[in-house]
Amino acid sequence: MRFDIITVLPELIQSPFEASILKRAMEKELVEVHFHNLRDYATNKYKQVDDYQFGGGAGMVMMIEPIDKCISGLKAERDYDEIIYMTPDGETLNQGIANELSLKGNMIILCGHYKGVDQRVRDHFITREISVGDYVLSGGELAAAILCDTVIRLIPGVLSNETSALTDSFQDDLLAPPIYTRPAEYKGWKVPDILLSGHTAKIDEWREAQSVKRTEEKRPDLLNK
Amino acid sequence: MRFDIITVLPELIQSPFEASILKRAMEKELVEVHFHNLRDYATNKYKQVDDYQFGGGAGMVMMIEPIDKCISGLKAERDYDEIIYMTPDGETLNQGIANELSLKGNMIILCGHYKGVDQRVRDHFITREISVGDYVLSGGELAAAILCDTVIRLIPGVLSNETSALTDSFQDDLLAPPIYTRPAEYKGWKVPDILLSGHTAKIDEWREAQSVKRTEEKRPDLLNK
Repeated sequence: MRFDIITVLPELIQSPFEASILKRAMEKELVEVHFHNLRDYATNKYKQVDDYQFGGGAGMVMMIEPIDKCISGLKAERDYDEIIYMTPDGETLNQGIANELSLKGNMIILCGHYKGVDQRVRDHFITREISVGDYVLSGGELAAAILCDTVIRLIPGVLSNETSALTDSFQDDLLAPPIYTRPAEYKGWKVPDILLSGHTAKIDEWREAQSVKRTEEKRPDLLNK
Repeated sequence: MRFDIITVLPELIQSPFEASILKRAMEKELVEVHFHNLRDYATNKYKQVDDYQFGGGAGMVMMIEPIDKCISGLKAERDYDEIIYMTPDGETLNQGIANELSLKGNMIILCGHYKGVDQRVRDHFITREISVGDYVLSGGELAAAILCDTVIRLIPGVLSNETSALTDSFQDDLLAPPIYTRPAEYKGWKVPDILLSGHTAKIDEWREAQSVKRTEEKRPDLLNK
């Protein structure tokens, strides 16, 4: 898998890829992530990549030409399965989309910034628009990092214990059950007896029931899917 | 406003705060962000902060004692309005929650990692559990960065043009209309004539209609709120 991330702020998005699971995935050569500074594709000497909105209004708009140059250059080198634009009005990311994208090969991710990109970029270059949630961010960089994280951790071999991802929340439309570790008692707060019983079948039953209970209480919408 | 972020991977989360809007907000002293490495609060010589699950199963659990020490130390120094745990089974972040949190003072954000934290942490120390979306991340660090970004950009004075935030998607439960910038024609793709007309009232009308149309097409659920 390969991600090409186009951004005006590569320095903002780098640290999440230089630590922990994403770093290890890259070291194991399970994924390549390349950052492209949009300013390198600017066409004037001021390295301009944004301009005022037609029709007036607050906020700058990212220009089509540098984006076209960057995307077209990448597409000339290899085929891409998706050219994704991170935007709050895209389809809302969920675990199903993450699972689906984890089976793809090469993907470009365009990070919006300022007020967003010229609509013609979306109409003519983008194959998929994804939002990480119903809130507004300063830019698409953190959203792109979130997308990469959700997808990359699903690639076989990335997590040290593969069963770990399968028991996460959402993989079966149920929230995960409560979890506990040592000490068994802390300031008088005890771990549920069942978890200390050693009775595997009963523990599984308890966890399943807790998952359902927690989902009913917190996210009944997941059960009605 | 002050955020205290507790994490096992401070290096993962730092770059988003060292660039762009978050950096400027800190330079203007509109917000303070402090990172606390949970390992500094470990109680044994191995700096251990996680352990196996009671009852068995894949994935490590963050232990209660280091978290208690870190949170209790912070609470001894100042009052906190919220102690937030980032977790996929928390309430789903949206613009309304971001608006609400932007009015608060001091907040602690605990980033989950591995399989999550011991349930007793959630039962006894956490005042609010927030999810950034229905997907699983490697840890809560990117989620914490997302939360800080959505909230901090709403603090008056952080964005250079305050009206910009007000016309973003979600602030009125409508998606933003299409935006365009120069050139007016690129490879035969034209900007809508209305935006070049100079007729402000008609442009506002067109944008409003486009916002409604886009919301109806992409996110009818927002209109039924």
